[in-house]
Amino acid sequence: MKAMLIHPDRLFPSDPQTRKIARELYERVGKLPIVSPHGHTQARWFASNEPFPDPATLFVQPDHYVFRMLYSQGVSMDDLEIGQPVVKDPRKVWRIFASHYYLFRGTPSRMWLDYCFQELFGLRERLSEKTADLYFDTIQEKLRTKEYLPRALYERFNIEVLATTDSPLDSLSEHRAIRDSGWKARIVPTFRPDPVVDPEFHGFADRIAQMGEQSGEDTWTWKGYLSALAKARLRFRALGATATDHGHPTARTADLSEQEAEALYGKVLSGKATADEQELFRAQMLTENARMSLEDGLVMQIHPGSVRNHNRFVYERYGRDMGADIPSATNYVGALRPLLDRFGNERNLTIILFTLDETAYSRELAPLAGHYPCLRLGPAWWFYDSPEGMMRYRQQVTETAGFYNTVGFNDDTRAFLSIPARHDAARRIDCSFLARLVAEHRLEESEAREVAHDLAYGLVKKAYKL
Amino acid sequence: MKAMLIHPDRLFPSDPQTRKIARELYERVGKLPIVSPHGHTQARWFASNEPFPDPATLFVQPDHYVFRMLYSQGVSMDDLEIGQPVVKDPRKVWRIFASHYYLFRGTPSRMWLDYCFQELFGLRERLSEKTADLYFDTIQEKLRTKEYLPRALYERFNIEVLATTDSPLDSLSEHRAIRDSGWKARIVPTFRPDPVVDPEFHGFADRIAQMGEQSGEDTWTWKGYLSALAKARLRFRALGATATDHGHPTARTADLSEQEAEALYGKVLSGKATADEQELFRAQMLTENARMSLEDGLVMQIHPGSVRNHNRFVYERYGRDMGADIPSATNYVGALRPLLDRFGNERNLTIILFTLDETAYSRELAPLAGHYPCLRLGPAWWFYDSPEGMMRYRQQVTETAGFYNTVGFNDDTRAFLSIPARHDAARRIDCSFLARLVAEHRLEESEAREVAHDLAYGLVKKAYKL
Amino acid sequence: MKAMLIHPDRLFPSDPQTRKIARELYERVGKLPIVSPHGHTQARWFASNEPFPDPATLFVQPDHYVFRMLYSQGVSMDDLEIGQPVVKDPRKVWRIFASHYYLFRGTPSRMWLDYCFQELFGLRERLSEKTADLYFDTIQEKLRTKEYLPRALYERFNIEVLATTDSPLDSLSEHRAIRDSGWKARIVPTFRPDPVVDPEFHGFADRIAQMGEQSGEDTWTWKGYLSALAKARLRFRALGATATDHGHPTARTADLSEQEAEALYGKVLSGKATADEQELFRAQMLTENARMSLEDGLVMQIHPGSVRNHNRFVYERYGRDMGADIPSATNYVGALRPLLDRFGNERNLTIILFTLDETAYSRELAPLAGHYPCLRLGPAWWFYDSPEGMMRYRQQVTETAGFYNTVGFNDDTRAFLSIPARHDAARRIDCSFLARLVAEHRLEESEAREVAHDLAYGLVKKAYKL
Repeated sequence: MKAMLIHPDRLFPSDPQTRKIARELYERVGKLPIVSPHGHTQARWFASNEPFPDPATLFVQPDHYVFRMLYSQGVSMDDLEIGQPVVKDPRKVWRIFASHYYLFRGTPSRMWLDYCFQELFGLRERLSEKTADLYFDTIQEKLRTKEYLPRALYERFNIEVLATTDSPLDSLSEHRAIRDSGWKARIVPTFRPDPVVDPEFHGFADRIAQMGEQSGEDTWTWKGYLSALAKARLRFRALGATATDHGHPTARTADLSEQEAEALYGKVLSGKATADEQELFRAQMLTENARMSLEDGLVMQIHPGSVRNHNRFVYERYGRDMGADIPSATNYVGALRPLLDRFGNERNLTIILFTLDETAYSRELAPLAGHYPCLRLGPAWWFYDSPEGMMRYRQQVTETAGFYNTVGFNDDTRAFLSIPARHDAARRIDCSFLARLVAEHRLEESEAREVAHDLAYGLVKKAYKL
Repeated sequence: MKAMLIHPDRLFPSDPQTRKIARELYERVGKLPIVSPHGHTQARWFASNEPFPDPATLFVQPDHYVFRMLYSQGVSMDDLEIGQPVVKDPRKVWRIFASHYYLFRGTPSRMWLDYCFQELFGLRERLSEKTADLYFDTIQEKLRTKEYLPRALYERFNIEVLATTDSPLDSLSEHRAIRDSGWKARIVPTFRPDPVVDPEFHGFADRIAQMGEQSGEDTWTWKGYLSALAKARLRFRALGATATDHGHPTARTADLSEQEAEALYGKVLSGKATADEQELFRAQMLTENARMSLEDGLVMQIHPGSVRNHNRFVYERYGRDMGADIPSATNYVGALRPLLDRFGNERNLTIILFTLDETAYSRELAPLAGHYPCLRLGPAWWFYDSPEGMMRYRQQVTETAGFYNTVGFNDDTRAFLSIPARHDAARRIDCSFLARLVAEHRLEESEAREVAHDLAYGLVKKAYKL
Repeated sequence: MKAMLIHPDRLFPSDPQTRKIARELYERVGKLPIVSPHGHTQARWFASNEPFPDPATLFVQPDHYVFRMLYSQGVSMDDLEIGQPVVKDPRKVWRIFASHYYLFRGTPSRMWLDYCFQELFGLRERLSEKTADLYFDTIQEKLRTKEYLPRALYERFNIEVLATTDSPLDSLSEHRAIRDSGWKARIVPTFRPDPVVDPEFHGFADRIAQMGEQSGEDTWTWKGYLSALAKARLRFRALGATATDHGHPTARTADLSEQEAEALYGKVLSGKATADEQELFRAQMLTENARMSLEDGLVMQIHPGSVRNHNRFVYERYGRDMGADIPSATNYVGALRPLLDRFGNERNLTIILFTLDETAYSRELAPLAGHYPCLRLGPAWWFYDSPEGMMRYRQQVTETAGFYNTVGFNDDTRAFLSIPARHDAARRIDCSFLARLVAEHRLEESEAREVAHDLAYGLVKKAYKL
């Protein structure tokens, strides 16, 4: 058999009967269009449609999954040119990566990369020190052809919708440019207000000022601030946004009176708020955003529980998003109560909950989503967007929340080229989970087919109103 | 093959060798009598032996597993007539349920219901909008025959013992009526003192007064209160009770001096106790009940960790037990220490621990039960009384606590008709777990047979002194 | 087929394809030399090379895994002669153990014991009341032959390195005696400073005084204390030690200024430190030890999260290490930050993290070890050194940390005779995990072979500098 990096039966259970069922389910959903409602690709790639520069800039430099692993094993981030505006010696970076590629055995990064290397670039021998240059040259050459331009790849990937994640201060000019270009793609922004909602963000007050200028509201008042946010949401919606996203350290919510909220906002602006008051402000802003969602219809995503920039040295030297964000234990049952007391029973509100604390799946999230009409569960996230992680998610969530309180898959990626691989893995794992239910006579095969389709395509469109 | 809702090999592992072993183990235990030492059926059903009114009243209205899922997907609780004394339009309720039955795919509710539909009512096509009326009419008709009266079903289910759960204020007249009727069944009460032990229960002081009247003790004094409780326990024991049950928010225990306890009781009665003092009072009462158990021999069950009535709107409108109880993280290792310091080494005391926090299985509960002579582990509870949940329980508990520090299965149900399905599922999962141990040469088949029998029948009788 | 206690295919997955792969992987690593970098055997056994006295003294009395289970089921610790200097009636103790051996079904103790009974003593019928005397006599007889002397067993077990765990106050005379004897074995001490670092240890101040005498430093001063520790570390290193070990209640670390640390040390010595100050002192000492490790090259192991001596009665009557240590929830992400802020990015420092809180695997430990250059993850520990526990470890750790941030297996045992069984089980589980990855086309078989070798032999030597 010809050498290959990825096998047609990958991720299916080894038991032959179950594998057969999984394969049959997958055959029906594997090629469905990709709906990507939450991620971190850049609109400018599609607006400008310029070639991706080189393999190192494409696969190593932006991918904190990749370089954190190299760093953990003693590779220097400087040698990888992390944080540099332009990679000066991409071949050298690539060779370092290639010679450490064995470190990724058993990780999802390896699975995504191999998929991409084989399916997109036709490579069939494993990446290693030996094949480093072959890879570099092959990829480099193809990236310069028009079939590998961002828009061509978008089409090749069979993407139906792709959502980016954007600051309320973003002009969205690139989204507008895509729309104005006449290119038939659906690339939509997502409203992520963290930079103007989280007082701990560096330069918070400057951004409040900037939001005032953009919106024509007096953002130094609580009312003006809320109005500016509401306006920004509408501006996003006008360019196709259907969702907001909130990346707070915890899931804490609050429901202060207007006076209390106003006073707290003043304190936060003054820079004199304590850590707890800053947290309370973020908490209140989740509830405010829920209220706005009820008005403008944007679906709300909450992504709590990451301790950002845990490594002080790395943060000070290289900045944010450098692979040093570490999950921490996250409570939902008490934290969400103020918001749920106020809006939990609204049928026209959708709040999608994510977690980096897997213990919450069966203990808190599935019971909450299996009761409150407004709640849905986002898919396995970040560290858990992996074969074992996604399987644990289904095993721990389904029995209490069912399938229909979940919302399909999110790729949540900066790595555009990994999108097909990620959706493919999610579909395979879901089909494998369903196949086990069928093999153990817990679900009929005809039902499993329907559910597989919903998990791959139907639920995401419904939950995100796409 | 004829259509069917449940398959003879359901829940067995798909690997053929392991399935064969599981099937052989199950054949030896599947038909053993049912011992149900903890649940929420009503003694009055058996005292009066009147027909169950209709399918909606039987399967939908009382089952918060069922209606919470419908509610989570936007079905109105009013349309389901939840909380109404009598269901006025049962066929309409049933149709709503039927048309949403697909929501239960992958959940234990679906498994229990299908078992009941097929085994008890002979239905073989899946419940759906299309088959709603067929189901309603078939079930309705059978419910009116004498084979479907509560006592007939009790016998048909091959129940050996059935425990209800009752307030210390309950007269137990229905239990007495069953006993006096000469019917040969063993239906026993369980002493659940929460309403007279938890100061946060609505109407606490009234109930203390009522307990005083019933017992002839001065329940406004600490001594009188304890005597009244001890008397009530004896009254339960006289009607066959072998166990108490304690549903506290946490597992906290305390061991106050008599003076401290007396003062705390006074404060609690005054209505001026803080939340922490109320919690301390409950904590102290666990230790007091342990002491009484050592005297009267009643087995003690602790069911902590549920945040009750999480949904304020639903609680205010529909009351308690409406599907809005959410688990929360529960500590045992520190919480139980005061009680264990005092009684942990007593060989004549049995305390059965339950959890809604699965992380405690391997971290706290199995190590505690694998050491303290008085401790045993209750089975997977509530949200985890499910194929995946029960399997996780065995996988996480057995290696540290063994099989013999567990106590068999509890159905813990209000849904009388689901009892056979629940015990059947537990037996299948236990046999599947054992079959894997045998297939992986971690246990001999002859040993697995013994263990399977103990898990289905022997351990529960021993642990609950039945 | 001849009766046997352990099967050649034990612990391999039941699916035939996967089992075949597991078996082939295992064939390549099953007989590799044992590297045991962390455990609790006694150097004096090998220094004196005297026969082990009898089966009860060998298998029951020192093994808290064994007697805690018996105790949990009502067996008296006095009847087992626990805590006695010499077992007076070993046959009686053995019979009690034998007649309760069924309690260990499904536990790793049973697996280790059966391995030893069959492989070392040629026993093939299960231990029970019936075979108690046969076992006792067979074992007793063999223990008196020279093939069963400690050194002979060490060689028979194919041990390449064996690390003990020792107090800084230990003279290490027995280690020196082994070295001086000319026997070609590598038995090395491990520096475990808990008794002179943890102010809650009984007799703390006496030990500080003793350390002063040993080292010639004024240990009543902060500087002298640190120097004495540094000297003791060098003394250990001179006898082959490559590692330190720290068994704190939590993973808390601190990075105080020198003045703060000095003042805290004074307070701690005065006996007036609060519980929190004692905890802070331990926290600071982790960071101090990390600093020393950076100087002398000793690898640092942190074993946090055990609530020691949970059972007051057992502790007061029988002392420490009596099976009543209970895990508790352990935070790493905040706790380690002070130490990591200071030394986290050092490539010449190795800190190996362990846990008794499995929820930390995927949430905290794998993300930390998958980023910080100094961190590695120790194997599944204590209650989790078991088939299910080790499998969960690989499933929850690998996708984020990979294989190369782990350090192979630790047996961590007092039970010398169980060492081969424990390493064998770990190798089988690792091969089974790898076999599943191969069967599901997540890893190539040739890669799995390399990884299996690394997990069994390569990584431990590298991580522990052996």
